[in-house]
Amino acid sequence: MEKIDVPKLREIVGENNIKADLSDLYIYGSDSSVHHAMPWVVVRPDNTLHVQQIMEYANQEVIPVIARGGGSGMCGQAVPSQGGIIMDMKGMNRILEINLPDVYCRVEPGVVDDDLNLALKSYGVFYPPTPASSRIATIGGEIANNASGVRSVKYGATRDAVLGMKVVLPNGELVSLGAYTRVEASGYQLHKLMVGSEGTLGIVVEATLSFVPIPEFRCMGVANFDSLQDAGEAIGAIMSSGSNPSMLELVDSVAIKAVNKTMDLGLKEVAAALIFEADGMVKEAVDYEINKMRQICEKQNGQDIYASYDPQERAKIFMGRKKLFPALSKYDENLASTSLADDMAVPYSKMAEMAGKIHEIAAKNDIIMTAYGHCGSGCMHTKILMDTKREDQWKSAKKAITEVYEYVRSVHGTTSAEHGIGISKAESFKVEKSDSINLLTSIKKTLDPNNILNPGKLMQAPDDWVTATDLRYSVNSK
Amino acid sequence: MEKIDVPKLREIVGENNIKADLSDLYIYGSDSSVHHAMPWVVVRPDNTLHVQQIMEYANQEVIPVIARGGGSGMCGQAVPSQGGIIMDMKGMNRILEINLPDVYCRVEPGVVDDDLNLALKSYGVFYPPTPASSRIATIGGEIANNASGVRSVKYGATRDAVLGMKVVLPNGELVSLGAYTRVEASGYQLHKLMVGSEGTLGIVVEATLSFVPIPEFRCMGVANFDSLQDAGEAIGAIMSSGSNPSMLELVDSVAIKAVNKTMDLGLKEVAAALIFEADGMVKEAVDYEINKMRQICEKQNGQDIYASYDPQERAKIFMGRKKLFPALSKYDENLASTSLADDMAVPYSKMAEMAGKIHEIAAKNDIIMTAYGHCGSGCMHTKILMDTKREDQWKSAKKAITEVYEYVRSVHGTTSAEHGIGISKAESFKVEKSDSINLLTSIKKTLDPNNILNPGKLMQAPDDWVTATDLRYSVNSK
Repeated sequence: MEKIDVPKLREIVGENNIKADLSDLYIYGSDSSVHHAMPWVVVRPDNTLHVQQIMEYANQEVIPVIARGGGSGMCGQAVPSQGGIIMDMKGMNRILEINLPDVYCRVEPGVVDDDLNLALKSYGVFYPPTPASSRIATIGGEIANNASGVRSVKYGATRDAVLGMKVVLPNGELVSLGAYTRVEASGYQLHKLMVGSEGTLGIVVEATLSFVPIPEFRCMGVANFDSLQDAGEAIGAIMSSGSNPSMLELVDSVAIKAVNKTMDLGLKEVAAALIFEADGMVKEAVDYEINKMRQICEKQNGQDIYASYDPQERAKIFMGRKKLFPALSKYDENLASTSLADDMAVPYSKMAEMAGKIHEIAAKNDIIMTAYGHCGSGCMHTKILMDTKREDQWKSAKKAITEVYEYVRSVHGTTSAEHGIGISKAESFKVEKSDSINLLTSIKKTLDPNNILNPGKLMQAPDDWVTATDLRYSVNSK
Repeated sequence: MEKIDVPKLREIVGENNIKADLSDLYIYGSDSSVHHAMPWVVVRPDNTLHVQQIMEYANQEVIPVIARGGGSGMCGQAVPSQGGIIMDMKGMNRILEINLPDVYCRVEPGVVDDDLNLALKSYGVFYPPTPASSRIATIGGEIANNASGVRSVKYGATRDAVLGMKVVLPNGELVSLGAYTRVEASGYQLHKLMVGSEGTLGIVVEATLSFVPIPEFRCMGVANFDSLQDAGEAIGAIMSSGSNPSMLELVDSVAIKAVNKTMDLGLKEVAAALIFEADGMVKEAVDYEINKMRQICEKQNGQDIYASYDPQERAKIFMGRKKLFPALSKYDENLASTSLADDMAVPYSKMAEMAGKIHEIAAKNDIIMTAYGHCGSGCMHTKILMDTKREDQWKSAKKAITEVYEYVRSVHGTTSAEHGIGISKAESFKVEKSDSINLLTSIKKTLDPNNILNPGKLMQAPDDWVTATDLRYSVNSK
């Protein structure tokens, strides 16, 4: 900490863009993961030159730099596990250009996803990779984690929407990557390498993003299932039928109960429900997709099937899913909802088995786990509900998670669908990518020889996430 | 050449999979570019182990290895400009798995695009990035060049369709990259880095590809224009209107004349024509898209507008475009059609200006150039028609191309949309990517420290493509 030359940084970003009070540092020590670690200082650059100057300084002094967006990351990507400078990118939040004729926009990394979409709305278009945390998630953070969300089943993930970017490298150099056009074959696609690199290879200071027209028609449906198995099989059947849903979400019994406890929605407490949506410019085409999915749900013993174009009805259907995240915190007042093993992806045909496996593993380990998520894109979410004060529950959680990931890998799934690896998922990540870890490490070393950009993440994170940092919870050791 | 231990290679791949006759070597010395250079030997591996063993040997002896697919590359990617081993991947042409439930297929790199699509057809799905050379282009070659084609405007380029791959690194190591799922956020997206790397970073030995349903309905339309400007503006207007064409092609007067000369299609010899297509599962939605594009064409002074769902009518409309490439060779019996400056991409709003610029530059330099291409994805093709025996025509071509690329870069376009860089486009590529060339070079060095994988391409290619290799034409020097 004493390494930091605060006056030097103050000179770069100005008095108001530095935070070094203990209370501030504490707040910036956590994101939405279970982790906590104190940064040495928080700086908020206002422009690219600031970022370059900060990186030059940090590189010279070999000080870790951790770029931070909205802090909604769930695996500790923005937690400074080795101390250093938190670079708060939210000061760079300008929408630089919305170019409708050329079908792209240029933004700074601190632009909040919802703010971008609000601006795009008046042009009749939207930026689709939007995660559930879009009210606070920034474009820079979404790029770092290769974020995706409810509509990614149809419109793709962040990696698909990023056409190009400007990046400050660890030595302060500024490079332009990618292009401004729909296709590009001009050499290495380095902007695609940057997407998902979790702030370990460079700091994105500008992104060129594609967008798509806002559909004229949206229809959302819901189906209840008496068995999680049936619901899971419906997902597989829909996706292999050539359907083109704009949303296909699973919520299980735990999730439904949680929502009912906290909101007066009166959801039927079934084993599972599927929420499905289709969108488009022509109602007949949306009808076609909705009817197809409805029929598949019926065939898989779906009940109470209902679909609507009405915005209020749609909001009602989606409300349960939307409020699930906060609701899970209130499922049991003694249990906290923790983001662990929260976003694996498995092939569609394993979706039903995966959901069952989660419940089975939870029961065996005396914790509560939910199965829900953007199953249309292969993404299954879980949350672990546990008494975070009890040390044994952390051990159980760790055991359960290890089992979950073992299963995921055994069916050719992947450790993370959309939240990234950070600290919490490094163990499984390193096993999954064991044959390419050397390659990842050598690329990291080439781009960041002093290992100052978000060190200790991805392949550098320790296997044991429980002890990798302080936990964001107070645990009573026995 | 004497460096090559042919018996050693024979031991690896077997007697029948080695070619070292001068006549064979000559044939393997060129692709569809203007370049030619003799390889030392041609080997055809049958499996991954062969590839690993060949790479181990070549790496130890520091011998260049150039992976080759169908040889349809247009910029010299498969031309062994520094000699070495041509690794003919067409022996590895098995379709390993078509997994409809999980919506992916796994193929070896030597599978020909059309063969894959024929196999997928019986499942009701197709692989969309398909370039025009799909009868001979291999999946491995398409990955190397980040290929795209007529339908990429709607369905994306190769980089969008590749979910994962197995790659043999220069030292013979085998690594698995990517995943089997629609989304993935497990660290660096190295499979996306491999796409477009032109065989300079690794040899793809297996690819996992996504596919999409074959649409029930396809409707194709055509519109003639008395001015290239109007046609170009129609492209911009269509793309910024939120239209979703499955094809949007431009052909200019030179292209139309060439087709008329070689086929009895009786195309009206106008300044330019647009071919547009929409597809989908519901006719009303296809109608909607077609009508929207038709109206925009009308507004931009399009004439003789005509559209049809009928497969024969569609084939007739598309025939001119499809046969354009061979037709251009017959435009004038004294002029050869050369692939130079053949696939730049520019923002949609510059499409009209770009087309005009091509004709203007051609006239100024006493050569004939066409403007055509997949303009819906931002890609403008050209071909240069010239007397390849005349040295001065090569000089003119070089001058013209330099001017074309200067224009492209001045409007934030990119050197290559879909054919890659290889040798022919290195000059413009290096200028366009000047600030990231060091980064590209350092990544290349990290993955291939002995520089044995396709050396002399991309950033390593000389600026002067005319003298970079022998030309595939005999030129009379004065």
